[in-house]
Amino acid sequence: MRTPVGIVGFSGYSGAELVSILSHHPSAEPVLLEHREADAQPRPIGYTGPRRMPCSPESVHTAGLAAVFLATSPEVSMDLALGILEAGAKVIDLSGAFRLGTVENYERWYKEKHTQPGLLAEAAYALPEFCRTRIPSARLLSNPGCYPTAANLAIKPLIDAEAVDRAAGIVCDGKSGVSGAGRKASLKTSFSEVTENFSAYSILNHRHVPEVLRTSGLEEAEFSFTAQLIPIDRGIMETVYFRASRDIKSAGDLVEIYQSRYKDEPFVRIYPAGQVPDVRAVARTNFCDIGLHFDSASGRAVVVTVIDNLGKGAAGQAVQNMNLALGFPETAGLQ
Amino acid sequence: MRTPVGIVGFSGYSGAELVSILSHHPSAEPVLLEHREADAQPRPIGYTGPRRMPCSPESVHTAGLAAVFLATSPEVSMDLALGILEAGAKVIDLSGAFRLGTVENYERWYKEKHTQPGLLAEAAYALPEFCRTRIPSARLLSNPGCYPTAANLAIKPLIDAEAVDRAAGIVCDGKSGVSGAGRKASLKTSFSEVTENFSAYSILNHRHVPEVLRTSGLEEAEFSFTAQLIPIDRGIMETVYFRASRDIKSAGDLVEIYQSRYKDEPFVRIYPAGQVPDVRAVARTNFCDIGLHFDSASGRAVVVTVIDNLGKGAAGQAVQNMNLALGFPETAGLQ
Amino acid sequence: MRTPVGIVGFSGYSGAELVSILSHHPSAEPVLLEHREADAQPRPIGYTGPRRMPCSPESVHTAGLAAVFLATSPEVSMDLALGILEAGAKVIDLSGAFRLGTVENYERWYKEKHTQPGLLAEAAYALPEFCRTRIPSARLLSNPGCYPTAANLAIKPLIDAEAVDRAAGIVCDGKSGVSGAGRKASLKTSFSEVTENFSAYSILNHRHVPEVLRTSGLEEAEFSFTAQLIPIDRGIMETVYFRASRDIKSAGDLVEIYQSRYKDEPFVRIYPAGQVPDVRAVARTNFCDIGLHFDSASGRAVVVTVIDNLGKGAAGQAVQNMNLALGFPETAGLQ
Amino acid sequence: MRTPVGIVGFSGYSGAELVSILSHHPSAEPVLLEHREADAQPRPIGYTGPRRMPCSPESVHTAGLAAVFLATSPEVSMDLALGILEAGAKVIDLSGAFRLGTVENYERWYKEKHTQPGLLAEAAYALPEFCRTRIPSARLLSNPGCYPTAANLAIKPLIDAEAVDRAAGIVCDGKSGVSGAGRKASLKTSFSEVTENFSAYSILNHRHVPEVLRTSGLEEAEFSFTAQLIPIDRGIMETVYFRASRDIKSAGDLVEIYQSRYKDEPFVRIYPAGQVPDVRAVARTNFCDIGLHFDSASGRAVVVTVIDNLGKGAAGQAVQNMNLALGFPETAGLQ
Repeated sequence: MRTPVGIVGFSGYSGAELVSILSHHPSAEPVLLEHREADAQPRPIGYTGPRRMPCSPESVHTAGLAAVFLATSPEVSMDLALGILEAGAKVIDLSGAFRLGTVENYERWYKEKHTQPGLLAEAAYALPEFCRTRIPSARLLSNPGCYPTAANLAIKPLIDAEAVDRAAGIVCDGKSGVSGAGRKASLKTSFSEVTENFSAYSILNHRHVPEVLRTSGLEEAEFSFTAQLIPIDRGIMETVYFRASRDIKSAGDLVEIYQSRYKDEPFVRIYPAGQVPDVRAVARTNFCDIGLHFDSASGRAVVVTVIDNLGKGAAGQAVQNMNLALGFPETAGLQ
Repeated sequence: MRTPVGIVGFSGYSGAELVSILSHHPSAEPVLLEHREADAQPRPIGYTGPRRMPCSPESVHTAGLAAVFLATSPEVSMDLALGILEAGAKVIDLSGAFRLGTVENYERWYKEKHTQPGLLAEAAYALPEFCRTRIPSARLLSNPGCYPTAANLAIKPLIDAEAVDRAAGIVCDGKSGVSGAGRKASLKTSFSEVTENFSAYSILNHRHVPEVLRTSGLEEAEFSFTAQLIPIDRGIMETVYFRASRDIKSAGDLVEIYQSRYKDEPFVRIYPAGQVPDVRAVARTNFCDIGLHFDSASGRAVVVTVIDNLGKGAAGQAVQNMNLALGFPETAGLQ
Repeated sequence: MRTPVGIVGFSGYSGAELVSILSHHPSAEPVLLEHREADAQPRPIGYTGPRRMPCSPESVHTAGLAAVFLATSPEVSMDLALGILEAGAKVIDLSGAFRLGTVENYERWYKEKHTQPGLLAEAAYALPEFCRTRIPSARLLSNPGCYPTAANLAIKPLIDAEAVDRAAGIVCDGKSGVSGAGRKASLKTSFSEVTENFSAYSILNHRHVPEVLRTSGLEEAEFSFTAQLIPIDRGIMETVYFRASRDIKSAGDLVEIYQSRYKDEPFVRIYPAGQVPDVRAVARTNFCDIGLHFDSASGRAVVVTVIDNLGKGAAGQAVQNMNLALGFPETAGLQ
Repeated sequence: MRTPVGIVGFSGYSGAELVSILSHHPSAEPVLLEHREADAQPRPIGYTGPRRMPCSPESVHTAGLAAVFLATSPEVSMDLALGILEAGAKVIDLSGAFRLGTVENYERWYKEKHTQPGLLAEAAYALPEFCRTRIPSARLLSNPGCYPTAANLAIKPLIDAEAVDRAAGIVCDGKSGVSGAGRKASLKTSFSEVTENFSAYSILNHRHVPEVLRTSGLEEAEFSFTAQLIPIDRGIMETVYFRASRDIKSAGDLVEIYQSRYKDEPFVRIYPAGQVPDVRAVARTNFCDIGLHFDSASGRAVVVTVIDNLGKGAAGQAVQNMNLALGFPETAGLQ
C-alpha cells in the first residue's frame, strides 16, 4: 500500500506536475486537498483522478497523510503550514515563504509581512545536493526556487573549489518558460503578448537572488542576475559568465570540479568540455544538466545550465525531497 | 521616377525584407536579380511583383541599377561583387564577406579562403551611427552583422565615454530569432527542433565577435559573448553586463551618455532609467532600442538592447545605407 | 491637413491596429479617446504618440472628429454610440452590438439585452464587397465579425451563382489566432494553455453564425461551423466544404465565379485552381485570399480562405469602411 | 529478463518515441539497429542509451529480437522487411508501405513502384480496435497512419451503426503538428515558415484517405479530407462533420454508439455530449479522445477527435501492436 501524501494547489502548473509524478510513484499516493475552487475541465466519461478531500488539518489526520505539498502562493503557504504540521504531516512548501531564513530578508525581497517567523526560522532549505543531511529530520521543507536551483548547482561547486576570480563578479543570465509564472489569468503571460516576443524582468532585483547568495556564499555585489521570459511553456536556461582563477588551466579542470562534486548525485549531469545542453535535454525530467566553454588564454568561462522549471525547478525536486523526508529511495518516481 | 536598385537573394529572409521595404520606398524601386532558382510559392491570379532580370553585369547596365544588395552567402558575395561594381553599381553586401578588414581575420573566423582581398581592403564597414562619413563615397558597403549592430550601439558609447571598468570585462548575452539563420532546409532550424526549446551556440567563439571588437575597441579578453536561439521568427535581444567606472553615480549618468551620443540619430531610441524594451518594441522596424538598470551601491549595470534582426540587423540597415549612399533622406522608406 | 478620427479602445488589439494603420493614412489622423484606463508600457524617451482626449461627445465636437471607431465590447459600444452620433461624428463599430439586425437575433446569440434597438435598426452592416452602396450615407456602420468576413466572401458568390448543392449542406471549419479573443487577462488565452495545443469552441453555436446566414442567404440547417484556436497571434483560415451543383464541371468554373464577382475588388484575391493560400499570405494586410480544390468525379469542393483577423477581419476593414464613409479612396492607408 | 526488440530509424521522431516508450516497458527492451548514420547530439558524461547493433538479419538472429519496428520511409521498409522476417522476427512497420492492400492502390497514392507485392498481400493492417484478432498471428504488421487512426476511430462506429446520412457525405478536417512530417531538413517545416502560420495541403488528395476508406467502408465520393499544419510539435485534431440518420434523436444517442463500441477498449475515451477534448488532452499518451456536438433540429453533428500523432498515431500504437503480437498485456508500457 502506498503512503498517502496531500497536494494543495493541484490545479496550478506545479501542483498538476506533482499529481502527474506521484500518480506513477511506487510508494506514495497523491491526495488532492481542495483549498480554493478548482476550474473544471472536460473529462472523458469514466474518468477518475486521485482522491479529493477538503484542505484541513482534519483531512490530514483522517487520511493519514505523511506529507503535504503546498503548491501555493507565499501567503497561502504561511496560512496553511502550521495547521498541517500540527496535524502530523510534514510540509514541503514550493512557495518562497520559507526560503530566505530571516524575516528581514523575506520582507525586503517579497515586499510583504511574514506572518510565521517561527516556521521561517525552523524551515530547512531543501536543495538536496547541498542540504541533504537536514532534510530527513525536518518538519518543514522549503523547496528552492527554480532559478536558484539551477544557479546554485552551477555556481556553488566553483565557489567551493575557489575556481572563480570573484573580484570580476559572476553574471547569471536567466531565461524561463512561461509556466514559471504560475497558472492564472494575466495579461503579461497571455499568448499574444508572449509569442514572437522575448522580454527581461526584475533586472538586478529578482527575489530569487538572495537564495543564490545564501547558498553559494556570494556577496550581492558579486552576482548580477537577469530573468527573461522565453516563449515556451517549460524550461530554464541560465548562462553563467565568470573569469576563472589562475589555477584553472583548461576546460577539463572545470569539468573535473563538477564531476568530482556530483559523481554520486543522481540528478545532476555534466557534459564533456565544449558541449552544452539545451532546454529540451531536461524537459519533463528532474535533471539539472551542466556544460561549459572555457578560453584558456583569457580565463573567461561560460557555464550553461538547464532544468525543467516544473521538474527540478519545482515539482520534481519536491518529490525528491519527499523521498528523502519519508525514507523512500531518492529517485523513486523520478526516472 | 524611382531609381532602380537590384536585389540578389530576394527569396531569402533578408532579401524578401529588402523587397518589402523597397516596394514602399519613395525614391528607389526594387529589381529582382535571379541568381539561383527561386522556389515558387502560390500567388493570386494577377499577381505582379517587382521586375525580374538575370543576375549579371549586363542587367546592372541595362537596367541602370544605382546599387545592388547582396543578400547572399559570403561565397556568393565574393563571386558577384566585383562584376557588379565594374558594371557601375554600388554594392551593399549583407554577408560577412567584407566585414572583417583583413584576410587573416576573415579566414580565422569564417574558416575559408577570402577570394577578393582587394575588395575586402576597399569595403566600408557601414554602421551608420559610427561610420556615416565614409558611406556616401564608398563603392562597396559592408552591412554589419545583426548581433554586432545591437552590441556596438549598446557598448561603444560607454567605451568612448570611459564609463566601463574594463578590467572586469563586458558580458554580452545574445539571443536571436530563427530567421537569423537564413531561409534554408536545415534540421537544426526545423520547427520541431526549435519549438519549446532554447539553445546556446558558438559560445565564446561566434564569428560576429570580431566585428564588435573592431568597432568598439574592446580586446577579445574583455568581451564574452554567447549566441542563443529563441523560438521566434524575428528579433534580437542582447543583455549586456558590466561594472561602471567610478565616475558613474547613477542610472541617469548612463542614460545621459546614450542620450548625448544618439540625440541626432533617427533609429536609436533610449529608455528612461529602469525601463527596458522587449523584442516586440522594434519588430518590423529599423530601430535599435536601449534601456538599462544600474545598482549604484556596487556599480553593476545591465543594458538591454533590441533590434529586429531582419530590420536594423539586416535589410532595414541596408536600406538606411543605400539612402546614405545614393543621397536619399536617411529615413526614406523606413518609417 | 488630415481629417481627425477617434479611436475608443486603442489599447486593445484591434484598436492598436487601427492606430497603426491610421498613423500612416494619407487623409485621416488618429485621435485616441480615453474611455478606460490604458495600461502603461515602457516607451523610449521622447516618444509621442497620437493626440489623446477623454472619450466624450465634447471631445468629438472640440476635435471635429469626422468618425469614431469603437474597438470595444458590445456593451460599451451600445453605451457610447448614440452620444458620439449626436455630437456629429459617424460611428464605425467593431463589436457585435449592431450586426444582427433585430433585437431577437442579438439576444439569442449574445445572451444579453440590447439597449439600443433604434440604433440596431438603423445600423448598416458594412461588408464593402456586398454592401458598398449603403455605406457612404449611413451614420452608424457595423463592421463585420472576423469569421463571417472570410466566410461570406468565400460562400456568397457560390450561393449567388447557384453553384452549391445546398441539400448536402456547407461545412465551414474555422481557425483563428489568439488575438481574436481580444487583449485581456484570461486563463484560456494564457500562453501555457495555448502553446502546443489546438482546441475547438462554440461548435455549431458560434455567435458569428447568424452573420453568415444573413449575408449569404443560407439557412441555419444548411451551415455547419466550428471555431478553433490556432496557437498563433494573428490570422484566420476557414476551410469550406460543399458539393457543387451539376453545372460546375471543373475547378476552373469555380475560379471563374470568384474572378467574375471580385474582378473590381481591391482586397479579394483569387488563386489559380488547385492552389490555396496560407495564413501568412495575408498577414498584416487587408486582403482576403481564396483558393480551391475540386474533384470533378464527385463534385466535392474545398475552398480555403484566409484573412488577418486584425486586418480584413477587424481594423483593416474598418478603415476600408471609413474610407468609403468619408469619401477617401477605398484603398487609402491600406496598401 | 525483458524480450529484446529492434528499432530501425531510432533517431526520427517516431523512432525516438519508440525508444522512449520501450525504455520503460516492463517486458520488452529496445535495441537500436543502425541503418543510416544517426546524427550525434550532445550527451552527458556517462550517458548510456540502449544497446546498438548494425541493422542486419544477423543482428536479429544474434540478439534474438522477437520483433523489429521499422520507423522508416516506405522505400526503406520495403527494402528491409523481408530480411528481418526471414531472420525470425516479427516486423511492425510504421511506414505506408504495407497499408493499402494492393499494388494498384499503393502506386496510385504513393506514386512509386511497390517492390514487395507478396509482403503487401500478407501484411495485417493493425488498428487494434478493429483488427485485433489478426494481429497475434501475423508476421508483418502494418501500423496505421496517424490521420486514419483518428478518423477511423471516430467514423467507423457511426458507419457500422448506420448513424450517418451517407448521401450528404462526411467531411473530415484534419490538423496535425509538425512532427508528423518526420525528422529531416526541409524548408517547408523550418521554424520561420511554420511559426505564426497555418496551411493546408493534400486537399482531397491525401495518401491517408484510402486507409480511411478501406477501414470505414466509405466510398471516396462520400469522404472529403483536408490536412493542415498546426504550428505545434505533436498532436492531431480531426473535426468530423456529418448529417445523422433519422434514428439519431439526440447527442446522447451518438455518445451511446461510441460508448457501446469502445467500452472494453483501453485507449479510446468518450466525452459527455457537448464536451470535446483538445489536443493537449492526449499529449504523450496512447489515447484517442472523442467528443461531439449535435443539433437535433437539423441532424447536423460535429465529432472532435484527438490523438498524439507520435503516440496513438505512430509509436504508441506500434507498441500496443507489439504487445498484442508478442502476448504481453495490451497496455504494457503505455500507461
